[in-house]
Amino acid sequence: MDAPWPAPGTPLTELMTPLPVIDEARLAGNIARVQDYMTGIGRNFRPHIKTHKLPELAAAQVEAGAVGINCQKVTEAEVFAEAGFDDILITYNILGPARLARLRALNDRIAALSVTADNAVTVRGLADTFGPDRPLTVLVECDTSAGRCGVQTAGDAVALAQEIARAEGLRFGGLMTYPPSGGAAKVEAFLSETLTLLSQAGLPCPTVSIGGTPDLFLSDQVPSATEHRAGTYIYNDRAMVRAGHVGPEHCAMHILATVVSRPTETRAIVDAGSKALTSDLLGFQDHGLIEEYPDARIVALSEEHGTVDLSAVEGPGPQVGEMVRVVPNHTCVVTNLFDRMVFHDGARVTRVVDVAARGKVW
Amino acid sequence: MDAPWPAPGTPLTELMTPLPVIDEARLAGNIARVQDYMTGIGRNFRPHIKTHKLPELAAAQVEAGAVGINCQKVTEAEVFAEAGFDDILITYNILGPARLARLRALNDRIAALSVTADNAVTVRGLADTFGPDRPLTVLVECDTSAGRCGVQTAGDAVALAQEIARAEGLRFGGLMTYPPSGGAAKVEAFLSETLTLLSQAGLPCPTVSIGGTPDLFLSDQVPSATEHRAGTYIYNDRAMVRAGHVGPEHCAMHILATVVSRPTETRAIVDAGSKALTSDLLGFQDHGLIEEYPDARIVALSEEHGTVDLSAVEGPGPQVGEMVRVVPNHTCVVTNLFDRMVFHDGARVTRVVDVAARGKVW
Repeated sequence: MDAPWPAPGTPLTELMTPLPVIDEARLAGNIARVQDYMTGIGRNFRPHIKTHKLPELAAAQVEAGAVGINCQKVTEAEVFAEAGFDDILITYNILGPARLARLRALNDRIAALSVTADNAVTVRGLADTFGPDRPLTVLVECDTSAGRCGVQTAGDAVALAQEIARAEGLRFGGLMTYPPSGGAAKVEAFLSETLTLLSQAGLPCPTVSIGGTPDLFLSDQVPSATEHRAGTYIYNDRAMVRAGHVGPEHCAMHILATVVSRPTETRAIVDAGSKALTSDLLGFQDHGLIEEYPDARIVALSEEHGTVDLSAVEGPGPQVGEMVRVVPNHTCVVTNLFDRMVFHDGARVTRVVDVAARGKVW
Repeated sequence: MDAPWPAPGTPLTELMTPLPVIDEARLAGNIARVQDYMTGIGRNFRPHIKTHKLPELAAAQVEAGAVGINCQKVTEAEVFAEAGFDDILITYNILGPARLARLRALNDRIAALSVTADNAVTVRGLADTFGPDRPLTVLVECDTSAGRCGVQTAGDAVALAQEIARAEGLRFGGLMTYPPSGGAAKVEAFLSETLTLLSQAGLPCPTVSIGGTPDLFLSDQVPSATEHRAGTYIYNDRAMVRAGHVGPEHCAMHILATVVSRPTETRAIVDAGSKALTSDLLGFQDHGLIEEYPDARIVALSEEHGTVDLSAVEGPGPQVGEMVRVVPNHTCVVTNLFDRMVFHDGARVTRVVDVAARGKVW
């Protein structure tokens, strides 16, 4: 039986919970504000679709001025190619015959596909898959101190760039990094050193792509970059407020939840558990902020229950049946849990959209 | 474009990762061993479907001897009613007109539907929805020290039972608790006291339902119980091994993952992140156990990346392109991330089944 998704016009107060909802005005404001900043500093902007997974919102981002989109997986990129997007960067080491075959089909289909690589095994797999008739653009991923993927030195970056450039079916597209928050100086140092070495080696570097929402408005502190990627900024969340990226008035996503139990004077149970909020803490000690009761703390999650400590709340606190709005710690992972996303104008549902790329992990 | 799910017969080594897979022999062993124990102690067994969300597996559990099934949400129960299950307990306070209307439709449809309540607001909503022509069975949820939902005292349990019994459209079905691990004595004390008070009040108590996998094989330490509910036992996970419920040889779920990067000698990156493993720590300091490298530690998750610390691993460690098997911290939440579940015989895919109740949160 289909889940009962609400029709446009339905008052928010009548929605079944738990349910993430998106404020249209805040969403539009976030898209415009960030694009304006990027345009202002003369930087290409390439939104990461991981946060919304919705072609409709990516279209709004491109309409606002984005140069293209950023996906993390081949199957995500397929969804967006199907929806008409023709400039897609997949920031991932693509490995294995099945995935490489799909990547090749995707490259045959859209105007500008690019991927990243940080190791020779990945580059060899790509080189064996693509030919000069329809080459693939490959950027070198650099670890500029975030400690995830990426080559470790400027010299290693250049060596891998040369391997890419030597492959008949590949084009060296430039450098890409997932930068650490607060690390602009280190990022710039790594990138500028690499650019110098690339220049000495006679290798043109068309794109230098940095990213992240927390330091988005500090993108100009990395002058070597030509492009910025970011996902979370479109909805924002508790972690972005803590990081100082925005104030709470720019959080477009809330999870609507209902108080289902008040076992004690200091304990409430809401129907938003890890299947609605996810267990992502991102450094917080609790699982989201309840807007109506900011002194309440969601101290534990089961799959369908959130346990709320009301010790610090003045007055009687929320009652059984009461609906509350929770700002999640991390918006992107919430999106991946729901088949559709519900948008609203503050009072009523405006649209309900299929989360087209939900669950695309390959 | 549809995701490329593997056909039966496909070797596991050819699967695209990340992907949870279920070992058929371990699955069958888990179902049989637990049912045998429950039959042996003369206790009704009611599996919780949250772990698998699959009518096919619930059918195997009922075939083995389960008296019915346990769901957490109305929309889950609808999926299982549609698949022919006619004895369903929903262990949740059902609130709000939309959900109550669906619950009433469900009660009209199956032979034996029951729910739980721990407060008067919930009971009033149920009483206003159901009539004597088609009454609903309601159990009182008791907090026997787990600290989630539930009335706090035996006296409160009896008072709520009387409210249920007074409602024309409701039947008092008994007591239900989600017990704390290691708390059999407290659970038995609460339940036996409540049974005494119910008896004094002249209220028959048909069912006393306890639950949980960690202490499943200690169910006989709660002699007042008539029924045990459990979900996780069917797959098991790292938390169940730590709890002493089973050995690692009974973990039926693994997440297949591929090493996509080896940025340093002590760091590997796998393609299983929080979209495959979830962020549920359940008290662990890391995000799952890599079977082939038990000394490796998955120290951080992004959505599509798992960061693995190899400091304690002897030898070169896993190489780029290598596939590994991860035992997740918590199996139930992994199930909720994937549209289909892949089963295998140790070497090849045996079946691929739609996760029919995935994402049913209402």
